[in-house]
Amino acid sequence: MTYTAPTREIQFILDHIVGLDQVRETERFADATADVVEAILQEAGKLSTEVLAPLNRVGDLEPATLENGVVRCSTGFDKGYEAIAEGGWVGMAADAEFGGMALPMTVATAVNDMLSGSCLSLSLNPLMSMGQIEALEHHASDHLKSVYLPKLISGEWNGTMNLTEPQAGSDVGALASKAVDNGDGTYAITGQKIFISWADNDFTANTCHLVLARLPDGAKGTKGISLFMVPKYIPDEDGNPGKANSLRVVSLEHKMGLHGSPTAVMEYDGATGWIVGEEHAGMKAMFTMMNNARLGVGVQGVGIAEAAYQHALAYANERKQGRSPIENGTGTIIDHADVRRMLATMKAQTFAARSIALYCAVSIDMATATGSADWQARAALLTPIAKAFGTDVGIDVANLGVQVHGGMGFIEETGAAQFGRDVRVTAIYEGTNGIQAMDLVARKMMDGGEAAFRLLEDVQKYSEKARSQFPELTESVWSAAESLRETTEWLVAQDDLADRFAGAVPYLRAFALVLGGFAHLNAASVEGGDGARTRLAQFFVKRLLPEHAALLQHVREGASDLYAITPEDLAL
Amino acid sequence: MTYTAPTREIQFILDHIVGLDQVRETERFADATADVVEAILQEAGKLSTEVLAPLNRVGDLEPATLENGVVRCSTGFDKGYEAIAEGGWVGMAADAEFGGMALPMTVATAVNDMLSGSCLSLSLNPLMSMGQIEALEHHASDHLKSVYLPKLISGEWNGTMNLTEPQAGSDVGALASKAVDNGDGTYAITGQKIFISWADNDFTANTCHLVLARLPDGAKGTKGISLFMVPKYIPDEDGNPGKANSLRVVSLEHKMGLHGSPTAVMEYDGATGWIVGEEHAGMKAMFTMMNNARLGVGVQGVGIAEAAYQHALAYANERKQGRSPIENGTGTIIDHADVRRMLATMKAQTFAARSIALYCAVSIDMATATGSADWQARAALLTPIAKAFGTDVGIDVANLGVQVHGGMGFIEETGAAQFGRDVRVTAIYEGTNGIQAMDLVARKMMDGGEAAFRLLEDVQKYSEKARSQFPELTESVWSAAESLRETTEWLVAQDDLADRFAGAVPYLRAFALVLGGFAHLNAASVEGGDGARTRLAQFFVKRLLPEHAALLQHVREGASDLYAITPEDLAL
Repeated sequence: MTYTAPTREIQFILDHIVGLDQVRETERFADATADVVEAILQEAGKLSTEVLAPLNRVGDLEPATLENGVVRCSTGFDKGYEAIAEGGWVGMAADAEFGGMALPMTVATAVNDMLSGSCLSLSLNPLMSMGQIEALEHHASDHLKSVYLPKLISGEWNGTMNLTEPQAGSDVGALASKAVDNGDGTYAITGQKIFISWADNDFTANTCHLVLARLPDGAKGTKGISLFMVPKYIPDEDGNPGKANSLRVVSLEHKMGLHGSPTAVMEYDGATGWIVGEEHAGMKAMFTMMNNARLGVGVQGVGIAEAAYQHALAYANERKQGRSPIENGTGTIIDHADVRRMLATMKAQTFAARSIALYCAVSIDMATATGSADWQARAALLTPIAKAFGTDVGIDVANLGVQVHGGMGFIEETGAAQFGRDVRVTAIYEGTNGIQAMDLVARKMMDGGEAAFRLLEDVQKYSEKARSQFPELTESVWSAAESLRETTEWLVAQDDLADRFAGAVPYLRAFALVLGGFAHLNAASVEGGDGARTRLAQFFVKRLLPEHAALLQHVREGASDLYAITPEDLAL
Repeated sequence: MTYTAPTREIQFILDHIVGLDQVRETERFADATADVVEAILQEAGKLSTEVLAPLNRVGDLEPATLENGVVRCSTGFDKGYEAIAEGGWVGMAADAEFGGMALPMTVATAVNDMLSGSCLSLSLNPLMSMGQIEALEHHASDHLKSVYLPKLISGEWNGTMNLTEPQAGSDVGALASKAVDNGDGTYAITGQKIFISWADNDFTANTCHLVLARLPDGAKGTKGISLFMVPKYIPDEDGNPGKANSLRVVSLEHKMGLHGSPTAVMEYDGATGWIVGEEHAGMKAMFTMMNNARLGVGVQGVGIAEAAYQHALAYANERKQGRSPIENGTGTIIDHADVRRMLATMKAQTFAARSIALYCAVSIDMATATGSADWQARAALLTPIAKAFGTDVGIDVANLGVQVHGGMGFIEETGAAQFGRDVRVTAIYEGTNGIQAMDLVARKMMDGGEAAFRLLEDVQKYSEKARSQFPELTESVWSAAESLRETTEWLVAQDDLADRFAGAVPYLRAFALVLGGFAHLNAASVEGGDGARTRLAQFFVKRLLPEHAALLQHVREGASDLYAITPEDLAL
């Protein structure tokens, strides 16, 4: 177990890169003083390092199982969950009215980074609850709120999201689950849902399912979908779990990773549900929640990148192999240029992805606190970038971590492989990274690219301030932003969305690299001259940022050459 | 099971891209006529598609186990192995004198591509034997040859390579295994070896271990190492398996993938061995074998890339999700630009990696057949590129394959995840890809870069021939080769090897992209205008090749900025 919560790194980014200050200067988040935030990071860090990290391997070796319809969780997960719940972490971003801590999303995101890095499979449980709490806060009736929010926030109950069906994955609108009005304020929900994370467990008193289903008069597609709260046990008059609802876990999936997190096929057979929000307006409620859940998944990638990095660094610092190729070396493989290149890449990418995720969170908080449309647009723009880049970095860094270990990386006992297996799904769930990229170039550019241009203007303006001290680095970041700006102009001029979609993934990555370069440049500036952060910034800007040019070239090829490659061509 | 051996694709590359013709024009390989090669590809393809591919999933689900010291293999592996042995495939490149087919390495490599793609875990068994056969052919005494080669070539016995020890991985010279001369022509071998692929099984009559160990008067490091043949059962006077040797399988590793292939810790306790080659010259014998084994591992990557691609393509052609975004689409997810981008990337990279591997094989054959130093140097130069790029492509393509599957990609039943788990080790064993890259920029550039310059000259010269027909593509390939040439000049001018090593991995990848671009350009030329290969060439050259520029930029940063990032910096 090598994971130590990166509280100092996160604190640095909050204070110097993403400007948490502006968040606490708002009335809404005035309570998030520097002292409070520091204490929270320390506390969450301690939980992650001491309680959760030791559970990570157990979850992999002892997958959750289904026994006679009951889910049995990995040894120790009950205690780990208890610690999360008792610390109040499930409700850290929730309203104080029902017991939440009402912390800024920025701080919650920082905490999620650590929970995910220490034990992704278990931390996915409270993450799902957090999403549900948010959806209920925004869309549920007062009655539902009063029954469910206190229990969810305290962690006594947990929450899930039920969107996917076998024929309805990325295309949620194709779902077939039905809802019928019982005429007594409840609805009867019938259908099968798949890929339901933490659909059941053996440590919470109730599991609350948010289920998307279609009412008889619901239109086809996403516009006819409604959202329902369907609890495992129907709350009695005192709000305690009462009789069992007509739903069941059919089976658990055998997955590549995240073994500690039960992923279920769920069956609802006329189960009793309560509507959340208006009829046929279920997707709206899901979207509120999904946006923030996407950021949450982005930091799952960042968290695993951190864990895989620390794990590989510890190995590289300890493994002796051959003569040191450098004078005054440590005598371990960290002396080898290629090992150092891999470690520097891992660290520099993790810093970039973390900065982007936390800046996205700051933008969400500023939008919430000020109601500013500009901040709202910035948050919306950054969300798919934070999700896709964070998880791609998680995958890349975990993969490099295996490589640093050499032959030992392929042996499961080492633990390096698990990071890669666990994190792989983060590029898929909550909207695949391809979907994120399409969201970025289409929906998030419906403003003609205004939000993107405003962000890049800021990047260029603030980069300028570093020019006298770091002329070369500044020029690299500035001109990369300029290339991105030009390509964005090209992009928004494409009326045929196919021309945007064809290069959406490379575009998103190029955008992230530019933002990452800017974050590194800022870190160097803060350090004020020569130091570890400056050296890492040079590494990132000179060796990794240049990839943006090839990516943007890819973007500008558009769709016609791509679609010219027919399914028949591909089958040859 | 979707794997169909890509015989047509391989035949195209052999005939039109890598020039198998020149190989069969040599006296040595005159028997490899077009008809013979075609028949061999068909036969090996049939074996792969019909017999081996159905075993692939079984190997994953039923790992080899160790029961009371005996290795039990996955169900059906015995029959699969029998089919490989009976087809003569173990000895396809071996001398005819002992029953081999004496085929060119090019054809053997093409066959290994298919064996690996259909069932990597089982095909690793004959691949190890092939390496051993080659080592014995070059270095063993006539007596050893006569006893072992017929059995190995027929597949009656199998062979392994024992290099690694816990403290001696990439640094083979650190090994501690000892050999003592028994004075009767045999040696007593004592020591522990790890990561021994196919160290035992329940279907061959004997397992022959080639073991590196040090004689009492052996110098420290690699110069004091000798190579020994240490059979599980000592052959009796008739050459049949006799009494059991003093060796045992201590344990099997629990690996991320390749579950069907038992990876053992071996213990030798004064086991009887016979020296192969001269005393203290064991590394020389290993190097002969390793070079070709590296190419073999490179095509393992290519084979898995092919399998993962076919698997993802089949899914994309069948999975419906949402409205088709294009007119006259198929109605499945292949209509989505990003899915098509992923599939085109997979196919284009696989073609590039396969062409490089097969051209490396042609170079080996030409060196063997003609004794030409130029061909020898070209083969040596291409080997690390074929190994590292082939396996990197295997990993990347398998990863994209998971992504094409969306949520189903994370579910083991789908099979997409297995390709990624299985292929991961190929970037590590037989010399990590970092070691390959270091080999490329150091040992393979001891000629001042002559072999590299000659190859790039050929690339530029032959690209020119396509200029009138494909001016844009030709210019892109030509100028990428020119950038690579310039960076190679810079590279060989660096006396401090650290400056080469710091960018060795990006350099190798850039080299592979240029060669891949050249192969695609050739394919377009052969097609002569418009067609599937031309469209794929455009995709590769316009969208993937541009990455070379960023990679070469990385290379030219050298080592000082990298080493400026200290272990303390990395620990911050």
